[in-house]
Amino acid sequence: RINGDRLWDSLMDMAKIGPGIAGGNNRQTLTDADAEGRSTFKSWCDAAGLTTGVDKMGTMFATRPGTDPDALPVYVGSHLDTQPTGGKFDGVLGVLAALEVVRTMNDLGIETKHPVVVTNWANEEGARFAPAMLASGVFAGIHTLDYAYARKDPEGKTYGDELKRIGWLGDEEVGARKMHAYFEYHIEQGPILEAEEKQIGVVTHCQGLWWLEFTLTGKEAHTGSTPMNLRVNAGLAFARILELVQEVAMGEQPGAVGGVGQAFFSPNSRNVLPGTVTFTVDIRTPDQEKLDRMRAKIEAGAAEICEKLDVGCSVEAVGHFDPVTFNPVLVSRVRSAAEKLGYSHMDIISGAGHDACWAARVAPATMIMCPCVDGLSHNEAEEISKEWAAAGADVLFHAVVETAEI
Amino acid sequence: RINGDRLWDSLMDMAKIGPGIAGGNNRQTLTDADAEGRSTFKSWCDAAGLTTGVDKMGTMFATRPGTDPDALPVYVGSHLDTQPTGGKFDGVLGVLAALEVVRTMNDLGIETKHPVVVTNWANEEGARFAPAMLASGVFAGIHTLDYAYARKDPEGKTYGDELKRIGWLGDEEVGARKMHAYFEYHIEQGPILEAEEKQIGVVTHCQGLWWLEFTLTGKEAHTGSTPMNLRVNAGLAFARILELVQEVAMGEQPGAVGGVGQAFFSPNSRNVLPGTVTFTVDIRTPDQEKLDRMRAKIEAGAAEICEKLDVGCSVEAVGHFDPVTFNPVLVSRVRSAAEKLGYSHMDIISGAGHDACWAARVAPATMIMCPCVDGLSHNEAEEISKEWAAAGADVLFHAVVETAEI
Ligand SMILES: NC(=O)NCCC(=O)O
Ligand SMILES: NC(=O)NCCC(=O)O
Repeated sequence: RINGDRLWDSLMDMAKIGPGIAGGNNRQTLTDADAEGRSTFKSWCDAAGLTTGVDKMGTMFATRPGTDPDALPVYVGSHLDTQPTGGKFDGVLGVLAALEVVRTMNDLGIETKHPVVVTNWANEEGARFAPAMLASGVFAGIHTLDYAYARKDPEGKTYGDELKRIGWLGDEEVGARKMHAYFEYHIEQGPILEAEEKQIGVVTHCQGLWWLEFTLTGKEAHTGSTPMNLRVNAGLAFARILELVQEVAMGEQPGAVGGVGQAFFSPNSRNVLPGTVTFTVDIRTPDQEKLDRMRAKIEAGAAEICEKLDVGCSVEAVGHFDPVTFNPVLVSRVRSAAEKLGYSHMDIISGAGHDACWAARVAPATMIMCPCVDGLSHNEAEEISKEWAAAGADVLFHAVVETAEI
Repeated sequence: RINGDRLWDSLMDMAKIGPGIAGGNNRQTLTDADAEGRSTFKSWCDAAGLTTGVDKMGTMFATRPGTDPDALPVYVGSHLDTQPTGGKFDGVLGVLAALEVVRTMNDLGIETKHPVVVTNWANEEGARFAPAMLASGVFAGIHTLDYAYARKDPEGKTYGDELKRIGWLGDEEVGARKMHAYFEYHIEQGPILEAEEKQIGVVTHCQGLWWLEFTLTGKEAHTGSTPMNLRVNAGLAFARILELVQEVAMGEQPGAVGGVGQAFFSPNSRNVLPGTVTFTVDIRTPDQEKLDRMRAKIEAGAAEICEKLDVGCSVEAVGHFDPVTFNPVLVSRVRSAAEKLGYSHMDIISGAGHDACWAARVAPATMIMCPCVDGLSHNEAEEISKEWAAAGADVLFHAVVETAEI
């Protein structure tokens, strides 16, 4: 078994970097806090005897060598970046549990045929730079490096410039590494495991996603002196599209979600009808057909709403992945490990996207989940117990060691 | 008659200060651009032989003396501050036409019993600091100076600090000046005069207003892994309240408007259901009973919407004025001046709020309007013709001189 106290201490130490305003973290991608988190993480990897490489997207790979020089490594990781008002565990748990797996291997003097590589993917959250899972997406050949470098934050700063600025632009070609397998351990970010009183989620699938960024063009005009019938009201169109997203998601129950997390009114003045409203619709479901149908319904419905109001409407897909089926051999290895260790477990579908979704395109991949209190995530109040963290790390340890072959 | 070319040149010169991004202006209250606009305006007042005083709210009063030392002054003015994406005429026309009236009096050697005071009210727009018409509101005893100083811009900077910073904190007690009368000339900011092909709007009333700032409290949660039935969705509540505002305004037609210009999602991340949504509802009508009814309907409806969604809802009134009836003697003086000068005219109700609305609380007051192209205002594309500008300034000149008594 891994050392649950040591894992928890590392989690709490990392949580000191980029503190939030309500007990969580704001360690967004390529900020100074991100740079500090990376340095701390690297010092821990150094202390564990690992050799750290960095690729041109800023992803960090810390290698524990194997005994067979020809054997491809087993990659184990997640991400250290957070939401602007993020929790202490989303992503961080997966990276530090991977480090804990290696520390435990060191403690026990375990040698494996395959190297084990602790991985910190860059820009998983997609909060500062859309889309999410950007570095793993480039790694898997989904996005080009140029596309990724040109991603902009809300202030117009690019990914490429900010990566250089914080000093974490590496020299490795992105995706040059080949993987024997990829494991990712993550908090569930949903309410199922806690409700079902299970310690371990054996992740069999991940639902697919579309991020549809709408730009609605109305006519800037005075809120007081512009009669109702002369308004070209982009705000009203926005409201109707938000209601439509809700309807479409409710119409595809069970197993579908839809909502809007980000919206900008412009010029955003109390007495000016907005000239533009920009917002991103987030829809997800594990069913490919449903996913496509939801997108089509929302785009068609939005066009109709806007036409009625004479509001201009353009849509850009700024994030997308199809539903993922994880590798059945690795999935059953995770299930057996949980069984062997005596942890209660159930099969589960990931509601959130993860770097494992892109890794699954280029290697056998799977995930392990632990519960989180009230299913809450992307919230500074995100919480797990030390015991929950340790149980999943134990399962990760066993699945990784078995895959890396003693 | 006034000098229409000189007026137009001054308008175009002022428009160079704090240029916008699309041909208009961004000279928001207490910004560096506002300070520059004030200095330029003061230099013009100096050149016209006026003595400029500044009060503790930053309002500027440039006096042309009268012949009777006991006669109260006639005040004539408007505001030089603009929206973030504002036009070149909203407010500016009224200040510079007042200056043009004085310049013409100088040209013609006209002496009046009452002094004439060209006035630039501070923070009329309310874009950077709510509420609108802040300085005239303090002048009229509606707000305290402490209240005004504590108003915050979206970055948290206060009115008091910013007024000091730009160097326009004056020493006059606000409201100490007594007025014989107050005149304000303004573009209509609506479509009526142009549609009716009238050169002059004789403003008899101004509609009342409520700015209701809502703070909706949902639960920050992951957009992907949070099932629909577990969401506490402040974004959805916002959408429904926006639709409600539309319904309430449409239900009170004719003669009522309602909309939302400003909204903030927090943390405003694509994959986080908003923890809070803050926005301001703007409702107006010239009918006091209707105004109160609209407010009541919106507050009750919003509470119901939020209760159904389990979303927290708090409302603060951040702006308000009751419908205004302007002084009948001054109104008919404006009407007669238009008549005498041969300008087409009609009675009109102001859709926007103006400093005249507060001045009317402490002095006989009225307004004059000219048309604007397509009724467009609070938009950089706001446009009027030189002839329209001059016609209203002519009417202003005659009404002011008559009131100041030769
Ligand atoms: N796990 C996680 O929150 N990833 C961010 C991408 C997403 O929105 O699913
Ligand atoms: N005239 C004008 O636009 N004033 C700003 C206050 C309002 O919103 O009516």
